[in-house]
Amino acid sequence: MARFLEDREKSQGQAPGSLIFIGQQKMDKPEISLMDFSKKHLDELELSSIDDVIPYLSKNSVSWINIYGLHDVDLIKRIGEIFNLDSLFLEDMLNTDQMPKFDDGQNYDGFILKMLYYDNLEKQINTEQLTLVLGKNYVLTIQEQRGDLFEPVRMRIRHHKGRVRLNNNDYLAYALLDTIVDRYMIIVEAIGRQVETVEKQIFNGAERNIEKSIYHNKIEISYLRKNIRPLIEIGYYLLKSAHTNFKKETKPYLRDLNDLITQTTESIELYNGIVSDQLNTYNTIVSNKMNQVMKVLTVFASIFIPLTFFAGIYGMNFKYMPELEYKFSYPVFWIIIILIGSGLLYFFKRKGWL
Amino acid sequence: MARFLEDREKSQGQAPGSLIFIGQQKMDKPEISLMDFSKKHLDELELSSIDDVIPYLSKNSVSWINIYGLHDVDLIKRIGEIFNLDSLFLEDMLNTDQMPKFDDGQNYDGFILKMLYYDNLEKQINTEQLTLVLGKNYVLTIQEQRGDLFEPVRMRIRHHKGRVRLNNNDYLAYALLDTIVDRYMIIVEAIGRQVETVEKQIFNGAERNIEKSIYHNKIEISYLRKNIRPLIEIGYYLLKSAHTNFKKETKPYLRDLNDLITQTTESIELYNGIVSDQLNTYNTIVSNKMNQVMKVLTVFASIFIPLTFFAGIYGMNFKYMPELEYKFSYPVFWIIIILIGSGLLYFFKRKGWL
Amino acid sequence: MARFLEDREKSQGQAPGSLIFIGQQKMDKPEISLMDFSKKHLDELELSSIDDVIPYLSKNSVSWINIYGLHDVDLIKRIGEIFNLDSLFLEDMLNTDQMPKFDDGQNYDGFILKMLYYDNLEKQINTEQLTLVLGKNYVLTIQEQRGDLFEPVRMRIRHHKGRVRLNNNDYLAYALLDTIVDRYMIIVEAIGRQVETVEKQIFNGAERNIEKSIYHNKIEISYLRKNIRPLIEIGYYLLKSAHTNFKKETKPYLRDLNDLITQTTESIELYNGIVSDQLNTYNTIVSNKMNQVMKVLTVFASIFIPLTFFAGIYGMNFKYMPELEYKFSYPVFWIIIILIGSGLLYFFKRKGWL
Amino acid sequence: MARFLEDREKSQGQAPGSLIFIGQQKMDKPEISLMDFSKKHLDELELSSIDDVIPYLSKNSVSWINIYGLHDVDLIKRIGEIFNLDSLFLEDMLNTDQMPKFDDGQNYDGFILKMLYYDNLEKQINTEQLTLVLGKNYVLTIQEQRGDLFEPVRMRIRHHKGRVRLNNNDYLAYALLDTIVDRYMIIVEAIGRQVETVEKQIFNGAERNIEKSIYHNKIEISYLRKNIRPLIEIGYYLLKSAHTNFKKETKPYLRDLNDLITQTTESIELYNGIVSDQLNTYNTIVSNKMNQVMKVLTVFASIFIPLTFFAGIYGMNFKYMPELEYKFSYPVFWIIIILIGSGLLYFFKRKGWL
Amino acid sequence: MARFLEDREKSQGQAPGSLIFIGQQKMDKPEISLMDFSKKHLDELELSSIDDVIPYLSKNSVSWINIYGLHDVDLIKRIGEIFNLDSLFLEDMLNTDQMPKFDDGQNYDGFILKMLYYDNLEKQINTEQLTLVLGKNYVLTIQEQRGDLFEPVRMRIRHHKGRVRLNNNDYLAYALLDTIVDRYMIIVEAIGRQVETVEKQIFNGAERNIEKSIYHNKIEISYLRKNIRPLIEIGYYLLKSAHTNFKKETKPYLRDLNDLITQTTESIELYNGIVSDQLNTYNTIVSNKMNQVMKVLTVFASIFIPLTFFAGIYGMNFKYMPELEYKFSYPVFWIIIILIGSGLLYFFKRKGWL
Repeated sequence: MARFLEDREKSQGQAPGSLIFIGQQKMDKPEISLMDFSKKHLDELELSSIDDVIPYLSKNSVSWINIYGLHDVDLIKRIGEIFNLDSLFLEDMLNTDQMPKFDDGQNYDGFILKMLYYDNLEKQINTEQLTLVLGKNYVLTIQEQRGDLFEPVRMRIRHHKGRVRLNNNDYLAYALLDTIVDRYMIIVEAIGRQVETVEKQIFNGAERNIEKSIYHNKIEISYLRKNIRPLIEIGYYLLKSAHTNFKKETKPYLRDLNDLITQTTESIELYNGIVSDQLNTYNTIVSNKMNQVMKVLTVFASIFIPLTFFAGIYGMNFKYMPELEYKFSYPVFWIIIILIGSGLLYFFKRKGWL
Repeated sequence: MARFLEDREKSQGQAPGSLIFIGQQKMDKPEISLMDFSKKHLDELELSSIDDVIPYLSKNSVSWINIYGLHDVDLIKRIGEIFNLDSLFLEDMLNTDQMPKFDDGQNYDGFILKMLYYDNLEKQINTEQLTLVLGKNYVLTIQEQRGDLFEPVRMRIRHHKGRVRLNNNDYLAYALLDTIVDRYMIIVEAIGRQVETVEKQIFNGAERNIEKSIYHNKIEISYLRKNIRPLIEIGYYLLKSAHTNFKKETKPYLRDLNDLITQTTESIELYNGIVSDQLNTYNTIVSNKMNQVMKVLTVFASIFIPLTFFAGIYGMNFKYMPELEYKFSYPVFWIIIILIGSGLLYFFKRKGWL
Repeated sequence: MARFLEDREKSQGQAPGSLIFIGQQKMDKPEISLMDFSKKHLDELELSSIDDVIPYLSKNSVSWINIYGLHDVDLIKRIGEIFNLDSLFLEDMLNTDQMPKFDDGQNYDGFILKMLYYDNLEKQINTEQLTLVLGKNYVLTIQEQRGDLFEPVRMRIRHHKGRVRLNNNDYLAYALLDTIVDRYMIIVEAIGRQVETVEKQIFNGAERNIEKSIYHNKIEISYLRKNIRPLIEIGYYLLKSAHTNFKKETKPYLRDLNDLITQTTESIELYNGIVSDQLNTYNTIVSNKMNQVMKVLTVFASIFIPLTFFAGIYGMNFKYMPELEYKFSYPVFWIIIILIGSGLLYFFKRKGWL
Repeated sequence: MARFLEDREKSQGQAPGSLIFIGQQKMDKPEISLMDFSKKHLDELELSSIDDVIPYLSKNSVSWINIYGLHDVDLIKRIGEIFNLDSLFLEDMLNTDQMPKFDDGQNYDGFILKMLYYDNLEKQINTEQLTLVLGKNYVLTIQEQRGDLFEPVRMRIRHHKGRVRLNNNDYLAYALLDTIVDRYMIIVEAIGRQVETVEKQIFNGAERNIEKSIYHNKIEISYLRKNIRPLIEIGYYLLKSAHTNFKKETKPYLRDLNDLITQTTESIELYNGIVSDQLNTYNTIVSNKMNQVMKVLTVFASIFIPLTFFAGIYGMNFKYMPELEYKFSYPVFWIIIILIGSGLLYFFKRKGWL
Repeated sequence: MARFLEDREKSQGQAPGSLIFIGQQKMDKPEISLMDFSKKHLDELELSSIDDVIPYLSKNSVSWINIYGLHDVDLIKRIGEIFNLDSLFLEDMLNTDQMPKFDDGQNYDGFILKMLYYDNLEKQINTEQLTLVLGKNYVLTIQEQRGDLFEPVRMRIRHHKGRVRLNNNDYLAYALLDTIVDRYMIIVEAIGRQVETVEKQIFNGAERNIEKSIYHNKIEISYLRKNIRPLIEIGYYLLKSAHTNFKKETKPYLRDLNDLITQTTESIELYNGIVSDQLNTYNTIVSNKMNQVMKVLTVFASIFIPLTFFAGIYGMNFKYMPELEYKFSYPVFWIIIILIGSGLLYFFKRKGWL
């Protein structure tokens, strides 16, 4: 289940805080970009080195540093120095197998999250790890590869829509988190649609291998749950904590985010229950079908096997079999056969097997 | 499972607090009505614009503003301005997929709830979203479409029955909530009756596709639970909170409401357990029936297949088969056949298969 | 499942606190009786009107007012006025479908409980609703019909046995509650005996329809749980509450009562688990039996069907079949048949199917 | 399930605190013995009357009064007076069906526990009720019958081994409790060995009636859980309580005892889970075996039934059947038969049924 | 299930704190080694007696005493004296069956843990008990046998890598604990890979005895859970406790360790759920396969058994059977046979059994 756990053998025995990338390199070279904005201005640039960001950190404006590409350990180390991040947090963010986590750092709030994508072809959920750091006046996001869910937020910044430009960096962080969690719900819906499709197949009786689809849905739901459920605790912590960089004005937004996370996990549990019920129901359907098959077999065999025996009797070559000689033996035989057959048919009818 | 989740793709990437209607438009044009009353007077009017409500808000009397029709985003925006509602709350109320929710607003208590209807034909529960806002001296209710459960409350106001006219707006809010929750219990009963019907079918053995009915009941119960369970937490919050617009005198009513919610959810869990037991029991019944079928087949086949073999033996055309020539071969053959048959019958009898 | 939920459609839309009787009328006319006692005196009378009780309420002695018959709404209303009971509590006590409930009234402790009876014929639990109110110097009990569990308590009062006459009204209330809860345990035992009977049947293999008995026991246990479990919370509340009419001296008795309730619910859960295990085990037994049946069929059919084929071969009427002419064909045929038969027997023996 | 609940009908309706023995009398006459010791002295005597104990209670030394035989209600009553025990506690200790319980008496700590014995023959757990009272300077133990687990403790007292003689009576109480709980773990191991035996049987496929063994183990585990789990709560209560006769120096021992109880219950839950898994796995094995049986039947029947039909065709006696006359009909018939047979064999081989 | 519980009969009846080794002796003679280091120096020696360690304990440097071999009770007793360890803690560490445990000693933090090893051949997890004591300036580790997971830590000390040499003994203790817990995750991965293999086998349908593999995985997961889950509580206790020897600077590391433990247990639960789903799904697959088998049998038998009957009819030797004489009887017979056969085929086709 490569999807559930990355191979972390190589980190075994390393000193805690050792920076080792666990995962697959998905880009050649990291790409660093910066959006620096206030109500009045917006600078958007590609940086060739992370050190270029330093002058912006001392300004009053909001700086959003985004990095595509997680595999470059040296870059991450340098980021740790510039933004004063804990080495254990750096170690965690380099591990793409890391469960969602919140680091209550001294001057920053660090999030490690999963961005979820639904692969329509494989009907499977894929993840990409996102690190989001909310500092004094900056937001730092580190992603595994190019392309993300944040384009609408960038648009809002560029075109001065919504409240991002009017607020501080904590609102930006919230907006980014909200975008990620909104996507969770959409993925849950996609799974929900799959579950609905299976439901129809179960009762239509058309498709084979339904148990494979059911199992597949169960696994996807487990995968979703694993990546989303830890957020509940993080959310509650944020709401209650006094040390975070989230200002009091942003708390109602966090509360709303929390509600969304709760609703998402409740939907996941709901579907989990439904999928379990589907498997049980399908099991009963299979048993019921076998029952039908067995009834048909039993009716056919139980009627014709005795009759064949009687036909066999009069196919015997004994020299002295008086019945063979009688004129009406043959029609009498048919009458008896039909009586026995009808009797058995009636018997099975009454048992409700026909 | 369109019933479980609405398509919310269109809200993805929008700024938080963006007002987008998620759901189906169920009316042409919203209808706004107002009941303004005190112990002594009652005004009841249809308003053409929500702005007509403003003069009433500064009066001392209780104003109940009811709106049928949720799809008009501009109206909802204006309502947000007039009643000073949080934009996140407005966003949630426009999402008909919203889980039951309580918004502890600055000057108001906001509820998003589901009104449940039982479709007797489809034997299925339908929902309509209700937003209820309890403000300083008003109650605001917004529903998806015309027609609701509140007619008895209006009657009580009009005919000065019960305590509504004697109390403040928080009692009105309670009375409306109580009406909704009372209905939940009636829906649970309806499901209970379905469950009872299935129970009879299971043991009568009459009906096919019982597993479909059982699954259907399970799904309806999941649906009920999803829409009712979040109320427990809301209820506890209300009872303990000091900031709500519910006055101390109304608290005993809230406690009673809470008890009713608890009893409803316990009944749901009870039926959930019973339905699971039904599926398991039905499964065993199906297995048992198959057992009966197999026994019949086995008895018939195991008795007549050997006998047919013996008949076949003496149907062979070998030139030298001494038995064929003997005078008493045929009656002896019958005696042997009957002995073997009886022996097998006795064997199966002793095994308890007959 | 009429047993699980009463029809409450008629209360829908009514004002909260409206007094409506939900249930079945079980008597013609309510009967009111009074026991008024202290250490020194005992008055026992039948009252024609509930108002006759008023003079006793101002006396120092303990008054136990017992009412058989719950359906008379006017009587209940008058009781509410005399004893100053909350209208919501009155509404609840009139609903025979009410879950066990405690009302922490201003001057009274109100209990709504179920008295359980075991119908030995139907092997089914029946309930009767009991309302018990502990006031300043009185205990009020309201039952659905004549005949109750309290006769031993009355005997103790009359014959000055035990501690009832020596103590206050809160001890009387405790004694009555204790009587009811004691009976719960006896009912649980009765169910336990049924469960034990089923256990024997499962492994004897004698009885059919065992799944029906198992399901029946499951339902009875659910019914017990529904009626008893809410008492746990009530018990804890009583122990911790400072506002109840239970005096400090009576607390140890309440603690003992609590222990009994806990033991009862734990026994219920224990049996619930056992019954689930029984169903699963029985399922496996059924599968195992089918396996036996199938083996017998397979052995018979697999041995004789090929043999019959060989007999059929030599029953063919081809003109040129050299074997038919040979002298030893027939005995050789028998030898081959016996060899094949023995080979197959050996094969099935080695597979362990014989 | 006589093992799970004693018949308590006779206590129904009795005044609370009424002393009635519920259980089986296991001895003729109770036997009372006393060990009175300090660091320096040890007196060990059999007492003819419980009143002989009174002089020792006022001495400074540790007195351990042990009583075999619980059925003598008068003795228990007298004990209650001498040691000043609560009548409700006396009532509980006389009920051998009593769940493990702790009574936080005014001057004593009262325990009602189960001593567990494993009956190797019946492979079943038996219980004996033990009451242990820790008073100011005494320990009182009451058992149902002669013979107990405490002999090693007596040996340690007699031979001045371990710490019992060096410590107060609370250490003695701890030592006795520790002995009982140690035994629990040994019983759990015995059950564990049974579970292990079943595991082997399941996969060997040797033994029949495995489902009975599995069910039996489930029941034993339920029985263990019922008798042990309540101790967890008692343990926590003791650790936190300030009013107990356990001195501060003994607390670390109690903590260790608590850990042992926790470990015992966790082991019970572990085995419970394993036994459930065993039943499910065994169910699948049974299904799989039936599958094998069915495949054999299907292969035999599906090959030979069509062949028999063809042989039947040429056994017909129609006057005009040209094939019967041809010289090579018979060998051609065999060739066709063999081709059909091989084709079907190949078909079943490819399906993986052979 | 020797793996789940050691035989502890021999400790029964012993005084609490009695030192008895429960487990298997895995070495001839214990081996004691010492690493004493500070930033500036490193001494590494093999000690012939534990008493040689005493002088190092009064020095300021960090002393790491490691002992291979747990069976020597005298050695453990002497260790208890030197390091001032509680006798109950010594008793627990000598019991290799001990659940993970934390002893909050007066001057030390004592851990009893399991080191887990994955036996690739038996595909089974093995454990070795580790005792780790964190004292004022020392760390004491006691293992069952030679060879451990700590070599990388020793390397870091020797080559002055990582932070071990720069920090106090509590960091060393953390580093050792971290090494052990890191290994847990690797073991979970190994189990995960097994689970993944089974998943493929289930749907390929290739392998038999899949239920054995599934059961085996379930057992391994139970075993993992038993040995890891108690750590969660220990972790929380450490984080909150004020009395431990872990300094404030080390707390963030402990928090990280806690997160890792949580992630490990969540992964275990995840796999546990998946394995349960696998068993259920496999069960359905087996049923479905049997259904296929039955359909083939039913189609063959139901078509050819009636046809054989008809062939049998015309094999009878009645003297007067008019059909036998007709010229076209035989071809007409074939036509009828083919019609009946086709009709049945069509019937089964429409039922979807072909």
